[in-house]
Amino acid sequence: MSEYKAPIRDIQFVLDEVFRADELWASMPATEDVNMELARAIYEEGARLCEGELLPLNRSGDEQGARLEGGIVHTPEGFKEAYNTFAESGWIGLGGDINYGGQGLPKMLTVMFEEMVYSANTSFALYPALTAGACLSIVTHGSETLKSTYLPPMYEGRWAGSMCLTEPHCGTDLGLLKTKAVPQEDGNYRLTGTKIFITGGDHDLTENIIHLVLAKLPDAPAGPRGISLFLVPKRLLDEQGACAEPNNVSCGSLEHKMGIKASATCVMNFDGATGYLIGEPNKGLAAMFTMMNYERLSIGLQGIGLGEVSYQFARNYALERVQSRSPAGAVQPDQPADPIIVHPDVRRMLLTMRAYNEGGRAFAAYVGMWLDIAKNHPDNEQKANAAAMVALLTPVAKAYFTDRGFDATVLGQQVFGGHGYIREWGMEQFVRDARIAQIYEGTNGIQALDLMGRKVVADGGEAFAGYSQLIRDDIASASGNIYAAALTQALGKLEQATDFVCSTAQQDPAVIGAASCDYLNLFGLVAYGHMWLKMDQAAQTGAGDFYQAKQMTAKYFFDKLLPEADAYYAKVCAGSAPTMAMPAEMF
Amino acid sequence: MSEYKAPIRDIQFVLDEVFRADELWASMPATEDVNMELARAIYEEGARLCEGELLPLNRSGDEQGARLEGGIVHTPEGFKEAYNTFAESGWIGLGGDINYGGQGLPKMLTVMFEEMVYSANTSFALYPALTAGACLSIVTHGSETLKSTYLPPMYEGRWAGSMCLTEPHCGTDLGLLKTKAVPQEDGNYRLTGTKIFITGGDHDLTENIIHLVLAKLPDAPAGPRGISLFLVPKRLLDEQGACAEPNNVSCGSLEHKMGIKASATCVMNFDGATGYLIGEPNKGLAAMFTMMNYERLSIGLQGIGLGEVSYQFARNYALERVQSRSPAGAVQPDQPADPIIVHPDVRRMLLTMRAYNEGGRAFAAYVGMWLDIAKNHPDNEQKANAAAMVALLTPVAKAYFTDRGFDATVLGQQVFGGHGYIREWGMEQFVRDARIAQIYEGTNGIQALDLMGRKVVADGGEAFAGYSQLIRDDIASASGNIYAAALTQALGKLEQATDFVCSTAQQDPAVIGAASCDYLNLFGLVAYGHMWLKMDQAAQTGAGDFYQAKQMTAKYFFDKLLPEADAYYAKVCAGSAPTMAMPAEMF
Repeated sequence: MSEYKAPIRDIQFVLDEVFRADELWASMPATEDVNMELARAIYEEGARLCEGELLPLNRSGDEQGARLEGGIVHTPEGFKEAYNTFAESGWIGLGGDINYGGQGLPKMLTVMFEEMVYSANTSFALYPALTAGACLSIVTHGSETLKSTYLPPMYEGRWAGSMCLTEPHCGTDLGLLKTKAVPQEDGNYRLTGTKIFITGGDHDLTENIIHLVLAKLPDAPAGPRGISLFLVPKRLLDEQGACAEPNNVSCGSLEHKMGIKASATCVMNFDGATGYLIGEPNKGLAAMFTMMNYERLSIGLQGIGLGEVSYQFARNYALERVQSRSPAGAVQPDQPADPIIVHPDVRRMLLTMRAYNEGGRAFAAYVGMWLDIAKNHPDNEQKANAAAMVALLTPVAKAYFTDRGFDATVLGQQVFGGHGYIREWGMEQFVRDARIAQIYEGTNGIQALDLMGRKVVADGGEAFAGYSQLIRDDIASASGNIYAAALTQALGKLEQATDFVCSTAQQDPAVIGAASCDYLNLFGLVAYGHMWLKMDQAAQTGAGDFYQAKQMTAKYFFDKLLPEADAYYAKVCAGSAPTMAMPAEMF
Repeated sequence: MSEYKAPIRDIQFVLDEVFRADELWASMPATEDVNMELARAIYEEGARLCEGELLPLNRSGDEQGARLEGGIVHTPEGFKEAYNTFAESGWIGLGGDINYGGQGLPKMLTVMFEEMVYSANTSFALYPALTAGACLSIVTHGSETLKSTYLPPMYEGRWAGSMCLTEPHCGTDLGLLKTKAVPQEDGNYRLTGTKIFITGGDHDLTENIIHLVLAKLPDAPAGPRGISLFLVPKRLLDEQGACAEPNNVSCGSLEHKMGIKASATCVMNFDGATGYLIGEPNKGLAAMFTMMNYERLSIGLQGIGLGEVSYQFARNYALERVQSRSPAGAVQPDQPADPIIVHPDVRRMLLTMRAYNEGGRAFAAYVGMWLDIAKNHPDNEQKANAAAMVALLTPVAKAYFTDRGFDATVLGQQVFGGHGYIREWGMEQFVRDARIAQIYEGTNGIQALDLMGRKVVADGGEAFAGYSQLIRDDIASASGNIYAAALTQALGKLEQATDFVCSTAQQDPAVIGAASCDYLNLFGLVAYGHMWLKMDQAAQTGAGDFYQAKQMTAKYFFDKLLPEADAYYAKVCAGSAPTMAMPAEMF
């Protein structure tokens, strides 16, 4: 029952049949050697690893948790061996820069593998994910010396990475941070301060951990424009680049969390630790934001991955568990009861999960596609246009994937009835593990504010208009599709909502935050509707169960989920008064 | 920050100002001595207990959990002392039959106290809640001997109760149960079988535990009509009614759960245990259902109680935590940042929680009122009418309270950002503790099916028409109210949805289950809208912050939450095809 199979057929459908990834990859020199055959081979090998090595450590990892003993963080049993296999097979450098030992594969391809790892073992997934994220910052902003020194062992997985942003008094508002970086005569810096919520801040998987740390120079201006980014290794390097004596960095304690218990969430103390500046002084936040779009898409995949594994467990349970009779009469008259998949309400839960997971997976490929075009396209205009799409769609992907992913895990747990509440079945762990993805990497409230404020209102709705036109074009090419009208109507609501907020915001800045969450939900529904239209179109060209199921799930999405668009539209257009009227002291 | 104050002012508003409880109580002989003054004194004493004794044990109880050692279940530190205080103050018999030592207070009054206990310590609350539930079954169906023997020590809290229904292979479908009851020559029975998920099945709080057990007689017909109810004490009684030798009942193991960890959830083994028949043979399920309406309303209060305590913690945090600036410009220019309550999206979360909690509290009083009328009214027609209201509204209360309560705890956790995910802050425990209330006491899917199938369709919509007319009457008396039109429209949608399902169900029985969840959500929104209209009306007669805040929350409800009604209506009217089309093997 607790069996997970990586959804390779579905991934192939999305990449190959919906998005014709082969053609896209072939059109750009950086990815001209990539094709679906290679992708399939990668997914098949990745699936074996996820299904066979990582999933079996998921429950035990949750029960054991990461633990701090003698100043060292120990990961649960089996993690080190699994990590070695993972690293040795080259998975950490999958999307990494080929000049430093990475494999340079496109995000559209790698993001689907990331989903599998999150499905199999979210806590485990975070160790390589943070390493890949740190590498990306180094690649983009680090000096040649930093790149050639640190990237190869990180891509190999011999060294790990961490991102040290949050402090006790500041998470969202990084302008308040207090960690200091004092320049030394040798051109390096000494960092002093405390960072919290540091995923993979310490562990026993690698011989070194490369911390990327936000800190302030002594003469830094106040606020977010005074933040710089530093590379601070756990162990300093000798002249040959090998690990030498420990740096002044230590893990002060581990957080006790709701979930992702096998992932070490550390309080990190920097006591005059040696660090190296990445990029320019006081431009640290900008350097972080470059990689954020990649990271945010990846964290979004945590929601889809957990939604998918929860779906598979729940589907298997619903096919086996017998309880009560079908409303249409017994389907197993010789048995004491029917499998619960006969019950419409159980189907409702499973189909909702499918619609979220599959819609999200397609949208992840879509955003990955824009990331790849923005990075690799030879034409600068195309590049800039893609970058605008990435900026617009990334907060939607991160927040909507993880909100709907959380909902999916709650539904999956509900399918199990009372057994869903019992740890042994694993369903409640998916809920706990999914919950953090709505909070970290920028809370979903912050994503919504980023979308509504920066990406839509501040942009005068320009990027949005471009996106909207792309959807209209796709609707036009699918004009015979029975869902074209429903999607057109929902898109119209989204456009009107956009106009409403853009035209109101100048007089009433609070409308942005008051509308942002509902706006993001409306946006997400339309974005998934766009994907479901494309999937339904693609599925009509095929025959057999797979394509039929795809069309039936499309129907479920359009008939049972898309109607929420009207409610979100009404909520957006309620403006800021209902939200802002109450004085703080009346709460 | 982690401070909880029982919402006595709000409770008083609901009972006194919205529902004029004094007049209702005075109108029925059974409650003619009850009045608001007494109620207030009870709540104040109850609040002291909940705030001062139970809340401080909530986090430690979660960390320690209940544990099974040497065949005995041990509750966490402090639970026994707190339980003794609770029992000695007479709280367990608050609603109990006055002929056997109970205090006979109306449900409309006691349900508000139950909310407080769930807020302060949900795991603790379940021990007395199960006792009260067991007492209710004994009162209603037990023989005079059983009543006079068992009820007094149970109301006193010297003995506890448990409800033993579920077995490994059957939860919802109790017709499948296997526990056997064999008649003995002395007129008693010997019970053999295994029960799971037994809340408070064993513990160290009391000298005896009275199990109410569903089992089958040897000659019982198959299915739900062959189930009988038995009283099985943990310890048998001597001739004076004192506890004597142990019965053949034991706790085989404790479940490891997502939450309510200080509540012992037991596997109970009955190995030829002595039991006494309650009510008639083969009428056990009917006997259970009598008390279910009381129990289901109470479990619903778990959702509201946890939503309320989560709100209070989140509100306090939002007033203290500073991060970023108000969209309208700094409100604390001399501080590095503003308290996060200035942010519209934080307000959205807090106001949504308020609207759910306060709407739910009013609806709990409303359903409690119907329960009291059904039980105590001298006029039989009134009684029958009230019983029909109880039957209709109870599944809505249980499911909608706990679904919205869970949502509220998730929102409260989100207000805390990353800290919400850390155990020490307590917010994630509320989420875990709230989750079970959507599952036990009949999953919320089962509640929705009960509502749509039994209470609406099978009834030909008659009870619903009565309820709808009551809302229309209240709208008519509030015709000047600015929300009258919005509520009328939403009620119209609910009526149309009802007609749609009633008229479709004969041809298509699957439409009931396919619509049930969305129908319940639509019903719940209208029910809360009804309450918010009444509260807004009542609040207009008062002056000051309390009444203003009430009106502002009403505005939030009508402008930002009620618009969901249209979406649920559309989902109901999508019929069964989107849900039923996919064959089981395609999932």
